[in-house]
Amino acid sequence: MSSKTNKNETMPVKIIPLGGLEKIGMNITAIEYNETIVVVDCGISFPDDDMLGIDKVIPDVTYLVENKERVKGFVITHGHEDHIGALPLILPQLNVPIYATQLTMGLIEHKLEEAKILKKTRRKVVKHGGRINLGEISVEFIKTNHSIAGASALAIYTPAGVILHTGDFKIDYTPLFGEAIDLQRMAVLGKKGVLAVMSDSTNAMRPGFTPSEVKVAKTFDDLFQEHNNRRMIVATFASNVDRVQQIIQTASKYGRKVILQGRSMENVIDIAQKLEYVKVPDNTLISVDEMKRYPDEQLVFITTGSQGEAMAALTRMAEGYHKKVKIKPNDVVVFSSTPIPGNEKSVSKVINLLEESGANVVFQDTHVSGHACQEEIKLIYSLLKPKYAIPVHGEYRFLQAASKLVQSVGIAPENTFILKSGDVLSLTEEEGKVTGKVPAGEIMVDGLGVGDVGNIVLRDRQKLSEDGIIIVAMSLQKEGNQLVTGPDIISRGFIYVRESGELNNQMRTVAYEAVLKSQKKENCDWGKIKKEVRDELSEFLWKKIKRTPVILPIIMEI
Amino acid sequence: MSSKTNKNETMPVKIIPLGGLEKIGMNITAIEYNETIVVVDCGISFPDDDMLGIDKVIPDVTYLVENKERVKGFVITHGHEDHIGALPLILPQLNVPIYATQLTMGLIEHKLEEAKILKKTRRKVVKHGGRINLGEISVEFIKTNHSIAGASALAIYTPAGVILHTGDFKIDYTPLFGEAIDLQRMAVLGKKGVLAVMSDSTNAMRPGFTPSEVKVAKTFDDLFQEHNNRRMIVATFASNVDRVQQIIQTASKYGRKVILQGRSMENVIDIAQKLEYVKVPDNTLISVDEMKRYPDEQLVFITTGSQGEAMAALTRMAEGYHKKVKIKPNDVVVFSSTPIPGNEKSVSKVINLLEESGANVVFQDTHVSGHACQEEIKLIYSLLKPKYAIPVHGEYRFLQAASKLVQSVGIAPENTFILKSGDVLSLTEEEGKVTGKVPAGEIMVDGLGVGDVGNIVLRDRQKLSEDGIIIVAMSLQKEGNQLVTGPDIISRGFIYVRESGELNNQMRTVAYEAVLKSQKKENCDWGKIKKEVRDELSEFLWKKIKRTPVILPIIMEI
Repeated sequence: MSSKTNKNETMPVKIIPLGGLEKIGMNITAIEYNETIVVVDCGISFPDDDMLGIDKVIPDVTYLVENKERVKGFVITHGHEDHIGALPLILPQLNVPIYATQLTMGLIEHKLEEAKILKKTRRKVVKHGGRINLGEISVEFIKTNHSIAGASALAIYTPAGVILHTGDFKIDYTPLFGEAIDLQRMAVLGKKGVLAVMSDSTNAMRPGFTPSEVKVAKTFDDLFQEHNNRRMIVATFASNVDRVQQIIQTASKYGRKVILQGRSMENVIDIAQKLEYVKVPDNTLISVDEMKRYPDEQLVFITTGSQGEAMAALTRMAEGYHKKVKIKPNDVVVFSSTPIPGNEKSVSKVINLLEESGANVVFQDTHVSGHACQEEIKLIYSLLKPKYAIPVHGEYRFLQAASKLVQSVGIAPENTFILKSGDVLSLTEEEGKVTGKVPAGEIMVDGLGVGDVGNIVLRDRQKLSEDGIIIVAMSLQKEGNQLVTGPDIISRGFIYVRESGELNNQMRTVAYEAVLKSQKKENCDWGKIKKEVRDELSEFLWKKIKRTPVILPIIMEI
Repeated sequence: MSSKTNKNETMPVKIIPLGGLEKIGMNITAIEYNETIVVVDCGISFPDDDMLGIDKVIPDVTYLVENKERVKGFVITHGHEDHIGALPLILPQLNVPIYATQLTMGLIEHKLEEAKILKKTRRKVVKHGGRINLGEISVEFIKTNHSIAGASALAIYTPAGVILHTGDFKIDYTPLFGEAIDLQRMAVLGKKGVLAVMSDSTNAMRPGFTPSEVKVAKTFDDLFQEHNNRRMIVATFASNVDRVQQIIQTASKYGRKVILQGRSMENVIDIAQKLEYVKVPDNTLISVDEMKRYPDEQLVFITTGSQGEAMAALTRMAEGYHKKVKIKPNDVVVFSSTPIPGNEKSVSKVINLLEESGANVVFQDTHVSGHACQEEIKLIYSLLKPKYAIPVHGEYRFLQAASKLVQSVGIAPENTFILKSGDVLSLTEEEGKVTGKVPAGEIMVDGLGVGDVGNIVLRDRQKLSEDGIIIVAMSLQKEGNQLVTGPDIISRGFIYVRESGELNNQMRTVAYEAVLKSQKKENCDWGKIKKEVRDELSEFLWKKIKRTPVILPIIMEI
C-alpha cells in the first residue's frame, strides 16, 4: 500500500464489537485501521423478558456515526436477522455500501425495500473467493457451512495483519446443497500468517462435531415413508433455507404437494427461489386454497412456529385459530428445530395442544445445529493458527468455554480476549490489549419509536403489569385549593370490577381525607396534595390487600 | 363395613381431580364413595407467564365446599408446595382434619401457623404402614422415595375397590437416608387386587431408571475433595431436604462450616431438623455473620436460587446485591438441580454473572430427579396390576406417554384414562367411564386477593405492560358540555418523557379536536365524547408511531 501505511507500520488494527457479546444476537463489529473503518454485520436481537412491549433491539452505533467519514462499508457474513436485521434502521445514519454474497443480499434488499431505502443504498454482490477493497482494508469472502446458503467467513486484510471472522459456521463435509466449507483456503491463510480469529462460540460448550445436514435428510426420508398415509406438517425456521429446500425435495420425491405457511416462510423462500437457492420441482408448491383438491396424504405444510411463537402459523393451528388449517387426529407434526433458550415453555404448550387434537408430534433427529461444536472450533484454529483469539457470538459462559478450547490448541491465554460491547481491542504483531471504550449498547425499538423507551418507561410498564393503575381525579379551586369535584377513583388492571364497589368507596374516602389533611398543612400546594394522596392510598392498599398499583392523582384547576 | 355398603355393592368409586392435570402443580383429587369424600393433596401452582402480577394459583374447590358435610379430610402424600401449598387458603372453607406423615405435617403446620389457623385445624400424624378410617373410605400410607423424606403412596380402600395413588415417587434401592420404597407392600396389594392406580407421570417421557441419590453423593464427595482450597456455594431447592442433608454431611466430613441462605432454606431445614429428618453434626451450622471467623476453604453456603429466581439469595450474590456475601474469583458454585421448563433463561443469566465474577460454576452429575422414569412406572404397574390406570402429575404429552407405557404392561387402552380437571371418573369392577363434570380450574391469588383478578384485569395488565397508558383529563360544564379545563395529557409507561414534549402537544390537539367534533353531533353525551377522544387518539398514535397504549379519557363535571 501507500507510503502512508509505511509511516504507520506499527499502527494497530482495532477490533470494536458494538454488540453481540453479552448475549446471542445483535452482531456488529467495527474493524478499524488508521483512516478506514469496515463494519462486519448489523443485526438485531430480540427483547429480554423484562423489556415489556419492546419489539426488537438494535445496536448503539454512535461511534460509527461520529466517525462516518471513515466508515467504508458493511461486509455481511450471512442473511440471518441477528446479522442483517438492523440495517434498515442503521443505514440511514451512515449511507455506506453493503457487500454480501447473493442470497444474503437478496434478503437484505427485501428489508431495504420494505423500509423504502433500497434505491439509495449502494450494494455489491461478492462471490466466495472474491475480495473487495475498502480504503486501507480489503475483505475476502470465504465459503463456510451454516443453516443458510451463502454463509461466509471474512478474511480482513489490514496493514497490521489479517483478521479472520468466521461468521456463524459449522463444518459440513457432506452438505446437501452446495460445497463444503473452504478449509483449504483457511489453511493457506494460516500458513501465510493470521493475526487474529473471531469465532462463533454458540456451541463451544458442546463436545464433538455437529452432525451433517445429511443426517436430517435420512430422518425426513424415513418419516415421509412411515407416514405415507397421513398429512404432514413440518415446522422450522424460514431462515433455515437449506432445511426448507430439503423438505421440499423429499416431499416431491414422495409425490406430495407443499404448502408454505407463515409470512416469513413465504417471503424468504420466495427470495431464495428467485435467486435459485431453493429449487422447487414443477407443480410442487400449491397455495393453501388449493389444498382441498388433494387428499391428506398428498400434502405437507412447511410452517413457521417451531418456537411456539404466539402469532405463528403452527401456533394458530394448534390453538384452533388458523383460518384455513385445522389439526386432524391423523396429522403428523414434525418440529425441525430445537427450542431457543427461553422458548421451551411455549413450545411445550403447542405440543400439548397438538397432541390433545390427536396429532402425532415428532422431534427426534429432525434437526442439526448450524454452529460448530468443540472439535470444529479446534480444527479451525489449528488451520488458521492465529496469534490472537476473540471468541464471539455467545453468552459469557460460551465465550469462556471457547477461550479454554482455543488455549488447548495453542493460543496463549494472554492472547485470548473475551470482550464486552464497546471495548476497543488494539492488535499488532507485538501486542494485543484493550485500549479504550466507545459507546455501545442496546437501543430498544417499540413500534416506529427507536430509543424513545428507556428504563423509566420500562419500570413503569413493569409496575403497571403487576398491579395495574389507580387514577385519583379531582378538581380544585384556583385560589385556596378548595375541592370542587372528586376525588374520583378509576382503575385499570387493578381488580375485578364486580368486586371493587366497596373497595372503591374506601379508596375515595382515604383520598378525600388525604386531601383535607394536606390542605390543613402550611404552604400546601398541588405537589404536596398529590404526594399525600399517593402515600395514604398506597399504605391503605398494602395493608388491605398487599398490592402496589401505580397511583396517579390528577388535579384539574377550576 | 355396615349394611349400608352392602346395599350399594355396585356403587362406583368416583375419582375427581380438581387440578394438576393440565400442567405440573396444583395437585388435588377428590376420591368419593357414596356419602364419603376424601381429598388427596391440596397444592398450588405457579402463575403462567401471561398471569401478570399473580403470585400463585390455587384450585377451585367449589365442589368440595358444596359437599362439605361429606368431606372427611385431606390425606397428603408429601410436603412439597404443589401438594400442600393451598391448604392455608382452602382449609378455612372446609374445616376438616389433615392426615400426613411427620415431616409433611411439620411443613404444613408451619404454613398454618403463618396463616394463623394452626390451632383450629385438626391434624393427625400417620406412620408408614398406618391406616386411617374416614367414613366409608380408609387410607393406608405406604413408604416411597422422592426428593423429600416422608413421601407416601396412598392405598385408598373403598367398597368398590382399592385405589392406589403413588404420590410423587421414584424407586431408590439405595437411598442415602431412610428406607427404600415398600415394593413388597405394593406387590401384596396387587396380589389381593387393585382397582385403579393414579401414578406420577413427570418423567414418563424419559427412558430407563432414575439414578439413586447415591450418585449425587459420589459427585459431592469428589467436588469437596477437588476444591478443598476454595469456598463453595451450593444451590438447591429448600424442599429437597435429603439433598440438603447430604451436602451438610459431606461438608462436615471435610471439616467445613455450613451457612444456610434464603428464607425458605432456613425455614424448611429448621423444621426438618427439629423433627430429626435432618441431622446436623454439632458446630457445623453457623450464621452468615460468623463466616469471617473462618477461612474461605472452610465454608460452604447452601442457598436458594437454583432456578435463577429474581429475589433468591444466589441471584442476589450473582448480581452483587447480596448484603453479606460477595462472589469471589476463587468460588466454586454448584447447581444441584436442573432448570424447571421456563426457567432456563434466568438460570443462564445467573451462571453468566457468576462466571463473569470469576466463579467456577459446576452443574454436571450434581442432581438426580425425584420422579420415576419409564422402567419404574412399568415396574409399579407390574406389581400392582390394576384394572384401571389414571396417569396424573404432568402436561398432556407426559400423561399420554404414561398411557402408552401402562398399556405396554397390560392395562387395556379403554381402561386408561387421561382426565381433565373436573372430570368425574366412575369406576366399578365392571366398568370405568367419565360420568360427569364438576367446577374446577385455577383461582388466581394476587397479594391477599383470592380470585378478584380475572381475565379482564389480566388483559388490561397485558395492554398496560406493552405500551403503557395515556390519560386525557378534562373538565366540562354540567350544562352544555362546554370544555372548562384540559384536555391534559398524562402518561405512564408510554414514552421517554424528554422525547414527549412535541408529541404531547400533538396529542392534546387531537383530543381537543375530538371533543369539539363530538360536541357538534346530536345527543352528545360524555360516553360519546370519551369514545371519540379514544378513537381519534389511538388512530393518531398508531399512524404516528405504531403503538397502542391504553387510552383513558377522564371527564370531571363542573
